[in-house]
Amino acid sequence: MQTAELIELWRGGQLESLHRGHVVVCDSRGVVEAWGDPSRTIFPRSSCKMMQALPLIESGAADAAGLTERQLALACASHNGAKIHTEAVESWLSTLGLEEPDLRCGSHMPQDSDENRRLTCSDSAPCQLHNNCSGKHAGFLTLNRHLRGGPEYVDPSHPVQRAVKAAFEEVTGETSPGYGIDGCSAPNWSCTLEGLGRSMAAFANPGSDRRGQAMRRLTDAMRRHPEMVAGEGRACTILMRAMGGQVAVKTGAEAVFVGILPEQGLGFALKISDGATRASEAAVTALLVHLGVLDKDDPAVTQFLTGKQKNWRGLVTGELRTAKGFPN
Amino acid sequence: MQTAELIELWRGGQLESLHRGHVVVCDSRGVVEAWGDPSRTIFPRSSCKMMQALPLIESGAADAAGLTERQLALACASHNGAKIHTEAVESWLSTLGLEEPDLRCGSHMPQDSDENRRLTCSDSAPCQLHNNCSGKHAGFLTLNRHLRGGPEYVDPSHPVQRAVKAAFEEVTGETSPGYGIDGCSAPNWSCTLEGLGRSMAAFANPGSDRRGQAMRRLTDAMRRHPEMVAGEGRACTILMRAMGGQVAVKTGAEAVFVGILPEQGLGFALKISDGATRASEAAVTALLVHLGVLDKDDPAVTQFLTGKQKNWRGLVTGELRTAKGFPN
Repeated sequence: MQTAELIELWRGGQLESLHRGHVVVCDSRGVVEAWGDPSRTIFPRSSCKMMQALPLIESGAADAAGLTERQLALACASHNGAKIHTEAVESWLSTLGLEEPDLRCGSHMPQDSDENRRLTCSDSAPCQLHNNCSGKHAGFLTLNRHLRGGPEYVDPSHPVQRAVKAAFEEVTGETSPGYGIDGCSAPNWSCTLEGLGRSMAAFANPGSDRRGQAMRRLTDAMRRHPEMVAGEGRACTILMRAMGGQVAVKTGAEAVFVGILPEQGLGFALKISDGATRASEAAVTALLVHLGVLDKDDPAVTQFLTGKQKNWRGLVTGELRTAKGFPN
Repeated sequence: MQTAELIELWRGGQLESLHRGHVVVCDSRGVVEAWGDPSRTIFPRSSCKMMQALPLIESGAADAAGLTERQLALACASHNGAKIHTEAVESWLSTLGLEEPDLRCGSHMPQDSDENRRLTCSDSAPCQLHNNCSGKHAGFLTLNRHLRGGPEYVDPSHPVQRAVKAAFEEVTGETSPGYGIDGCSAPNWSCTLEGLGRSMAAFANPGSDRRGQAMRRLTDAMRRHPEMVAGEGRACTILMRAMGGQVAVKTGAEAVFVGILPEQGLGFALKISDGATRASEAAVTALLVHLGVLDKDDPAVTQFLTGKQKNWRGLVTGELRTAKGFPN
């Protein structure tokens, strides 16, 4: 099957750029709707953080450490590196008797404008707490203390990553063809888009067993603490707020987006082939409207999809549009 | 004809993202090599600034104002907004008896890191001199003084823009289907990729007439002043320096790139369908190596194409590759 045309950029009444990709919507029995090729293998990147957090809960590590729901949301986050995120990770580490150098995620400048400006103008370097994945890594370190593993917890053969891989393959129902090293240095296992979509449907239809309970706790943590999952100005936070905590959504690098719709019993996954964030944000917005969980008149829809593109003088230059047939 | 697969992003031995597009290489007689569909209509955006500058010279306005070669390079630039650029535009305007408010390009934060930091940390707003197109607009204002037009020189019906459109259609050999408003508020006329490629071949094979002389002056200005055409750290500047002033290259928004190769008598144009700069920079680098004007061992090739992708801890995560068949 072919890649589907999903999002177009128009200027002056002419098509200027085009984003292709794959989208799949699943319920507990399998695929219910798709565009493009759901059998395509992708790297879920940060979109699978709620799957990577399953062993943290299922092992008993989260409860042994007394993690709050807010901390569980942070374990699933790609955050802005704002003060609310860095302080939460720092205090989490301190309860484990650990500090910033125990992280293995590396440092990058935070996306949060206040914190970015503070560092820039005081000539300060960012630290690993600012890394958008530092919450996930605090989760890894919490699991690691429980498993009594060594300090190099991002090594694919480390007990933490073996547990993550096992959960990932069980939930996707696939044997992963392999991993890539993610931006935060953790292994990221690939799967089919359909496998990722079915996983999200599993989170939307959790059983009463240990796994189902862990899935429900993580979904609830994400949709109840949208500010911890990303941050001010970010699509995940804005969209989850716009849907009133009904739905959990999560982005991943290279234009992946997933969603968990517990009330509808649906999960979805999408990947823009070229990796463009503007297109994954527009596509997830269109899909959420299509699925009836996001009001088409919500300001978030204007922001990510239907709003006119404007230039530096505020003149309208063009617009994003969904390509013909997406959504139907 | 279909869009061609051009640039791939690999991670952990698996294809993660893919950029498609169109590429055409022309000599004075027409297309000599192509990937994808050269008949596709595109917006050249800033890649056609040397065409937009033709009336500036051909009208006699440039010489009447005593413009230097460095200023002609700036008229063709998408610059960083560094001090060397903003000061050059400011002094240019002052020789016309004009000031920053006479520009109609709008303001945005400069890409130059020193100037960006200075503005950010002094809580200062950028001005129109920082706009990457302010040199082109200084050229428009120079032509406008010569033509005795009104102050709204970006209006499509203004004498300046009518002259630009006429030159653009003559050089492309096409009647444009229409314009879009560019980021800098000037009209940007669309053409086929082949039309853009043939135009670059015309610049590479200039006649001895008025137009040919203007083309030669603009090509020479660009390749002799690469720091004015973009700035430190930018692909146009780095690639032109790497080729020792032999070739002029110019990027445009939404992933357009053109090149003028006078010694080979060739011109080229490319457009990445999805608008991704990382892919247009990788593709132009591959094409320049293919055309024999850029050494495959040059650091610029490592920077834009063959270098390993690394994460925040410096670990190798993947690589860019040209797709099979590009270049042949």
